[in-house]
Amino acid sequence: MTLNDNIEPTVKGADRIIIGIDPGTNIMGYGILGIYGKKPVMIAMGIIELNKIGDHYMRLARIYERILMLVEQYCPDEMAIEAPFFGKNVQSMLKLGRAQGVAMAAALARQVPIAEYEPRKIKQAITGTGSASKEQVCEMLVRILNIPRESLLPKLDATDALGAALCHFYESAKPEFAKGPKSWKDFIARNPDKVHRL
Amino acid sequence: MTLNDNIEPTVKGADRIIIGIDPGTNIMGYGILGIYGKKPVMIAMGIIELNKIGDHYMRLARIYERILMLVEQYCPDEMAIEAPFFGKNVQSMLKLGRAQGVAMAAALARQVPIAEYEPRKIKQAITGTGSASKEQVCEMLVRILNIPRESLLPKLDATDALGAALCHFYESAKPEFAKGPKSWKDFIARNPDKVHRL
Repeated sequence: MTLNDNIEPTVKGADRIIIGIDPGTNIMGYGILGIYGKKPVMIAMGIIELNKIGDHYMRLARIYERILMLVEQYCPDEMAIEAPFFGKNVQSMLKLGRAQGVAMAAALARQVPIAEYEPRKIKQAITGTGSASKEQVCEMLVRILNIPRESLLPKLDATDALGAALCHFYESAKPEFAKGPKSWKDFIARNPDKVHRL
Repeated sequence: MTLNDNIEPTVKGADRIIIGIDPGTNIMGYGILGIYGKKPVMIAMGIIELNKIGDHYMRLARIYERILMLVEQYCPDEMAIEAPFFGKNVQSMLKLGRAQGVAMAAALARQVPIAEYEPRKIKQAITGTGSASKEQVCEMLVRILNIPRESLLPKLDATDALGAALCHFYESAKPEFAKGPKSWKDFIARNPDKVHRL
């Protein structure tokens, strides 16, 4: 089977592919989003179960292998990671940092740029409120991406990953994300010091 | 240039190669140890300067690339990592965890098994005291590995990495590290329940 056979038909013709990752040490979620013009379409989502793997390094190896596989299969243009900046204790943060680092290494190994978003930021971007529940995020993803609720519910752990990808799409669509000014008005707003007032 | 040209002459004929890593977010140290029979020999050591790279992801990418390069150049049998389990705060532990995760991913990508040691354990193994200074560790490495002090001092940040590799060599030489029993006495000591006492 060639690489091409593996790619879902919907990936073909996408303007951009974003891979969203929710790196946990027990369950890791992923979501692949294709952007067609201004329309985001869910291409794939799933979870990588790690809680059955006893060995810490085997878990890290599994994360690395599976994400590298997804990167090679879907050729994403960007990776969006859900990254909490605060945790219960230093021990859990070290473990989380390792899982994040391994996931990031898989993207960096294939020159995929990374963007990270706090859980609150993702919830805010999807539902409009930073304190939304997992179910509320799921409900909004069902509506925005027009996907059957039944397909999402068993993979609730993957919604955060899909949410991260969608959040990145929204953020990157904001004018301040683009490198250059879009108009003179925009240029003036960005560079007030360069304007000579008469 | 082929891979073989790159390998230092001393690597040839080594029974085992251990790569030691001290993963910091500012400076990352590495040390390559060759084991000839029961004799450890320093093959290479150095530092990867990260503090000049402003971007967090570029730092992680540099760690991954350089360690993968070292793994491919020296074909180590094992990786030993200096891994503090406690840090100042959750923020610094997350950063450290990411650096560790990326370094581990480079080993796992080439099926190199990993062992980690706390800084205190490494100091204890090398100098006999867990609270030894960096200079004391350096002094012992100079003596044990018979290397010129001048070559070690400018790379003081790499001594922890070389120390991790040497610590792993000592630990793996301990009888309890080996898979099988070495003698009947050892077997009996390990499996008291299998001994029928008359």
